[in-house]
Amino acid sequence: MTKTFTGNYFEDFTLGQIIRHATPRTITSGDVSLYSALYGMRFALQSSDEFARSSGLARSPVDDLLTFHIVFGKTVPDISINAVANLGYADCRFLGPVYPGDTLSATSEVIGLKENSNGKTGNVYVRTYGTNQKGEEVLEYVRWVMVNKRDAASPAPETVIPELPSAVTADKLIVPEKLLFQKYDTALSGSEYFWEDYKVGERISHVDGMTIEAADHMLATRLYQNTAKVHFNFHAMKDGRLGERIVYGGHVISLARGLSFNGLGNGQNILAINSGRHVNPCIAGDTVYAWSEVLDKATFKSRSDVAALRCRLVALKDKTPDGFTYMIDDGKYNSSVLLDLDVWLLVPKKA
Amino acid sequence: MTKTFTGNYFEDFTLGQIIRHATPRTITSGDVSLYSALYGMRFALQSSDEFARSSGLARSPVDDLLTFHIVFGKTVPDISINAVANLGYADCRFLGPVYPGDTLSATSEVIGLKENSNGKTGNVYVRTYGTNQKGEEVLEYVRWVMVNKRDAASPAPETVIPELPSAVTADKLIVPEKLLFQKYDTALSGSEYFWEDYKVGERISHVDGMTIEAADHMLATRLYQNTAKVHFNFHAMKDGRLGERIVYGGHVISLARGLSFNGLGNGQNILAINSGRHVNPCIAGDTVYAWSEVLDKATFKSRSDVAALRCRLVALKDKTPDGFTYMIDDGKYNSSVLLDLDVWLLVPKKA
Amino acid sequence: MTKTFTGNYFEDFTLGQIIRHATPRTITSGDVSLYSALYGMRFALQSSDEFARSSGLARSPVDDLLTFHIVFGKTVPDISINAVANLGYADCRFLGPVYPGDTLSATSEVIGLKENSNGKTGNVYVRTYGTNQKGEEVLEYVRWVMVNKRDAASPAPETVIPELPSAVTADKLIVPEKLLFQKYDTALSGSEYFWEDYKVGERISHVDGMTIEAADHMLATRLYQNTAKVHFNFHAMKDGRLGERIVYGGHVISLARGLSFNGLGNGQNILAINSGRHVNPCIAGDTVYAWSEVLDKATFKSRSDVAALRCRLVALKDKTPDGFTYMIDDGKYNSSVLLDLDVWLLVPKKA
Repeated sequence: MTKTFTGNYFEDFTLGQIIRHATPRTITSGDVSLYSALYGMRFALQSSDEFARSSGLARSPVDDLLTFHIVFGKTVPDISINAVANLGYADCRFLGPVYPGDTLSATSEVIGLKENSNGKTGNVYVRTYGTNQKGEEVLEYVRWVMVNKRDAASPAPETVIPELPSAVTADKLIVPEKLLFQKYDTALSGSEYFWEDYKVGERISHVDGMTIEAADHMLATRLYQNTAKVHFNFHAMKDGRLGERIVYGGHVISLARGLSFNGLGNGQNILAINSGRHVNPCIAGDTVYAWSEVLDKATFKSRSDVAALRCRLVALKDKTPDGFTYMIDDGKYNSSVLLDLDVWLLVPKKA
Repeated sequence: MTKTFTGNYFEDFTLGQIIRHATPRTITSGDVSLYSALYGMRFALQSSDEFARSSGLARSPVDDLLTFHIVFGKTVPDISINAVANLGYADCRFLGPVYPGDTLSATSEVIGLKENSNGKTGNVYVRTYGTNQKGEEVLEYVRWVMVNKRDAASPAPETVIPELPSAVTADKLIVPEKLLFQKYDTALSGSEYFWEDYKVGERISHVDGMTIEAADHMLATRLYQNTAKVHFNFHAMKDGRLGERIVYGGHVISLARGLSFNGLGNGQNILAINSGRHVNPCIAGDTVYAWSEVLDKATFKSRSDVAALRCRLVALKDKTPDGFTYMIDDGKYNSSVLLDLDVWLLVPKKA
Repeated sequence: MTKTFTGNYFEDFTLGQIIRHATPRTITSGDVSLYSALYGMRFALQSSDEFARSSGLARSPVDDLLTFHIVFGKTVPDISINAVANLGYADCRFLGPVYPGDTLSATSEVIGLKENSNGKTGNVYVRTYGTNQKGEEVLEYVRWVMVNKRDAASPAPETVIPELPSAVTADKLIVPEKLLFQKYDTALSGSEYFWEDYKVGERISHVDGMTIEAADHMLATRLYQNTAKVHFNFHAMKDGRLGERIVYGGHVISLARGLSFNGLGNGQNILAINSGRHVNPCIAGDTVYAWSEVLDKATFKSRSDVAALRCRLVALKDKTPDGFTYMIDDGKYNSSVLLDLDVWLLVPKKA
């Protein structure tokens, strides 16, 4: 029998199953540098140990999305290597800062199963937990994917679809305890706008475009130890529908987040990803643009220095963001839309 | 009103204005690794902590040009995002070693302004200071750029053109105090030539060529948090004159410096950039070659172990350097010339 | 006279000659991150400081092949810059773990010389030693290359061909002393197969393919400070036989090793490279696949927790590995074969 792991098929998942994912990963300042070089991140808190210290932390934490990608990558061999589609994210919360030197592990629990009517595929819902070397949870999210059945004749499991919040409610957001933005230097942060300056309904064009190279997205996706073959194998993908490798969706998320600095430069942390959808596939050569819309605002009882901004972050392909391209009349997305992400950001309040 | 920062236009600059640039940046060994991978640097002092220790330092300092690029990158959003042309550098001095773990900040002072006769653009001269977390200056340079006016009808400012040295005089060069090259191992450094071995007028072909990939120069430029859109956006640049993104000029400088190891392997530090000109634009696919000419030599009263070599470092595009291609008869540059840089190097003397 | 080093020609080598190679190199966690991003390595021991600690080490050691590439890179300017062909490797042993922070130096001894019958080239055999900053040997290997003569009229040296083992014998393998796999967590390692589960003659398809981009292999090869011009200079190579830069052979080795995780995920360390041949050249755009065959098994008298597996690791180009493509009837390699490597791996035994 072969020793090659071909991944789980729909009938391999059972409700309540706990999967400990392989390859714990120590995050280093080398990973942070690569992350910077891949996305051009300019948020001060993650760029400068000094800025982090003046904000109450021991040093710069790792970008929240780097944590997300590392944890996500671990789940791929077990959860989605035989996936037909990545259907969605929900209830994703960042629970505490991650620092270079921390070792991240990932565990998933199967929380929902539903065979599709064609009998060939099924949807699998998992809640994934990222923990550090002290056993502290740093990240938690739900993802659901459509996975092939090994054998169409296998009996369908009982259908269980988990109830998921359409957005994380503000009371569930975790603000890093030690992070204090009382003495916040807007010259260093690169943006003069505080939480009070943003209005619900306001839209922000992030102006700049970033073109993706094949080497970029493959370096990124390998860094995250994500093994989904569609990202790496031109020989296998060249005769497919796109004629190219597909860019890991998380790469587009990070590019959009990087671009969002211009307009949301004080959105130093992502507290939650309420929902996310990769609307269209992205390939090397595409130029990514982004725009944001403020969807909601929330304050924290115990904190006067920071508050939260709920934003829609939309990534576009080969289309400048000043037109805020989104859905077309019949509720479908414009073909230029790559990503529709809904996040809670932590933003300093006026002193 | 939009929260997107569109950068300063000519009329936004005033003489004596001080600009604190955003995003202080902690340099890490991850940045150093990427820098190595981008340029193939082989200078022993920056490659080996042990070589650095045997030279009196606590560990390997960061490559001088990495410091330059990081500081330069910070100034782009404020100084040159609306620049039409990067006109020149002068009086650039490296003032002390930078180590992984140091956090660099940048500040610029407007030292000159001159509206151009067309009334649509103006030249802005800034002196930029790079400082570490202790407030020590590590780098200082003057740059001038041609910047668009927001409104051609704006009144012209008083013309002030700063007096700039054609080269840093040797007495202004700062040799790192603790750096001692008394016990200098030429087998480890990779070059047997000391300061005494170089003659003014001598020219050195650096032989090798390095082809630039789009992913390379974009990774580099994002690492430096340089946001100039011409480097990243193929969608916007594809219909322009070059049909491609322009390579950040500093990328060409570092490539030329890396190639210069073969022939100038003991030029361990750059003490000053006397002047620099990006003669022709560079795009992905170009192969960079380099040659040097010794322009001057200088000794330091207080030091017998090291001295300085002033060199012209010329980068060529798709042309081998054995012909020392430079200017053509009428004083114009040959079309193969990418870069004309004038630097002071620190070189060990014979024991 | 030019100060550019043009490398050694066949007549520059003498039997017994010792060459100290330039540019000692401190390996950092930045190098490790880049290595991960280049090859997508997922072996737990090198990925997680915690996994390494639970295996008796102070932290994650550096990937064995990263050590190899760094040491190899140093030898290129002296040994193979004028090489016509890289003929083979033998007797390569990894002698102790390398950690981030260690500084590696390389020394080679000329152990064989043989002028070829055409009088224009000769074969040079060197034994290369990699040592850390404490003077401890961490790596040793023999390589032989065909090098051009500077002058065909130079007299031939006495022919000396060293006796080389066809494989490192098991008693010469060095198991890192402190590394203990008594408490081995297969969920974290990503493979449930122990040493006992592998049978001599068993073949394993590593399934996945990885396409090489020009930026990838050049970043890698520059990181290793390998200066062989065929890897970097498109301007010089575009009119050659391949019309492209040649990928450094070690890049293919690391890609194949990375792919081998799926099927050999518990082969945490490479103890030896018995022999290696770069069968066909590789260029950007090629997709690399790999398969392995178990050639031999060995136990260690003093160790009950680990044992060794001798494997052939074959890399293919644009050909899926399920057919185990190798040699064709007349003893020649199939044209899809890139690499034929013979290694000893360290694998945990069942408790």
